[in-house]
Amino acid sequence: MCELLGMSANVPTDIRFSFTGLMQRGGRTGPHRDGWGIAFYEARGCRLFHDPQPSAESEVARLVQRYAIKSRIVISHIRRANRGRVCLENTHPFSRELWGRHWVFAHNGQLSGVKRLPLGFYQPIGSTDSEHAFCWLLDHIRARFPQAPRRPQALWHLLHALTVELNQRGVCNFLLSDAQHLYAHCSTQLSWLTRRAPFGQARLMDADMTVDFQEETTADDVVTVVATRPLTDNESWTVLAPGTLTIFRAGELLATLG
Amino acid sequence: MCELLGMSANVPTDIRFSFTGLMQRGGRTGPHRDGWGIAFYEARGCRLFHDPQPSAESEVARLVQRYAIKSRIVISHIRRANRGRVCLENTHPFSRELWGRHWVFAHNGQLSGVKRLPLGFYQPIGSTDSEHAFCWLLDHIRARFPQAPRRPQALWHLLHALTVELNQRGVCNFLLSDAQHLYAHCSTQLSWLTRRAPFGQARLMDADMTVDFQEETTADDVVTVVATRPLTDNESWTVLAPGTLTIFRAGELLATLG
Repeated sequence: MCELLGMSANVPTDIRFSFTGLMQRGGRTGPHRDGWGIAFYEARGCRLFHDPQPSAESEVARLVQRYAIKSRIVISHIRRANRGRVCLENTHPFSRELWGRHWVFAHNGQLSGVKRLPLGFYQPIGSTDSEHAFCWLLDHIRARFPQAPRRPQALWHLLHALTVELNQRGVCNFLLSDAQHLYAHCSTQLSWLTRRAPFGQARLMDADMTVDFQEETTADDVVTVVATRPLTDNESWTVLAPGTLTIFRAGELLATLG
Repeated sequence: MCELLGMSANVPTDIRFSFTGLMQRGGRTGPHRDGWGIAFYEARGCRLFHDPQPSAESEVARLVQRYAIKSRIVISHIRRANRGRVCLENTHPFSRELWGRHWVFAHNGQLSGVKRLPLGFYQPIGSTDSEHAFCWLLDHIRARFPQAPRRPQALWHLLHALTVELNQRGVCNFLLSDAQHLYAHCSTQLSWLTRRAPFGQARLMDADMTVDFQEETTADDVVTVVATRPLTDNESWTVLAPGTLTIFRAGELLATLG
């Protein structure tokens, strides 16, 4: 199992607190020693940092922890390799352009036979089943919607139907973003919480660190965090039901399908 | 004018010396204050760092200068904006996937009316004429070669023909890579040199820094550096002729078309 972390917020938000907890699982409190990556959206742009090094020892991870990159959407992943060797091109999250937008995808689980699914436009660069599944998803979205649909609900339903197909092939927890929404699919394990006023204290499970969000936020901030397992032990996380696709935008839950 | 820096080498090579010289031009010895970016290939993978901050003051640039990322192909760019506002999505180099490979592109110059060139598959994420030109190049390459051609020369000739068309629209110095070759197109200004045994000392023009490559290399290393203007003042740079497309692989010059 890998560990996923996602964020959707209505204002550019610093993810370092949650990221610090996640990174400990990369070789210190967890067995996920096979690299990590993180994508930060900034308006239409996207920064991607990848490292095949264990996150707890990574120079780039230290930069990300020191450097307050503020973002409305973040997707991060620490990896315990089960398919595909440990190298940069097999490190999540993966990214492609569709409709002039960055799409970013990170997955945990194993998908059986997914590489036999035929691909059209998008081709994997590495050798993971995860990247193959991402290319397959985007191919189908592009085929059905050559341009972004006016009603996003049409896209959500297509994505849910495709996800059902992937889910039949194994474990398919994923986080996906189209630069506007954060899509969280729970196959076996994924939890989330929304922080909003009145903000309180949060205490990381994996590191000796507490943050008082009241000092870090304004009253209007809405920040949702999605993670494989809860990252804090004094807040109330919602466990997603297996087989559901949950859609967030600007920190708010928009829909759950499944 | 922006500044371009490219490297092609036969072994993973540390670019920090040349990068240090280039970065000084980003707001210290040069007027290129509108962001910078760098792409490092590692086998099939690619790391991209972008920052809309001036490179001479950038936290991410400091990481890149400290952290010895070794790569066979590097493309870097520091920007003086003339088209498109200063923001992450307008920061070079741009990247897309074709044939399951990362393609990376950085451009200097202005191209008139390039946004009227029709696009097919690839759509720009930002608003620069450079990214539009990159999407247009890749669209044509994909249309002509749905798979990578067996003889790379066929691709080189197509790329040269497309570049002639772009060149008619203004200034079009660019660096492009398909994860194997480094393509350097000179429209007005681009120079290169190859370092190989016996290695000597090199002294940066833009910073008080000298390196003795004999201490940093083995006798078999071949490293070519391409830059808008020579970066060192005690080595012999070759100035490329306007209208030429030069192709490097593993540090060696393969061909010049034009």
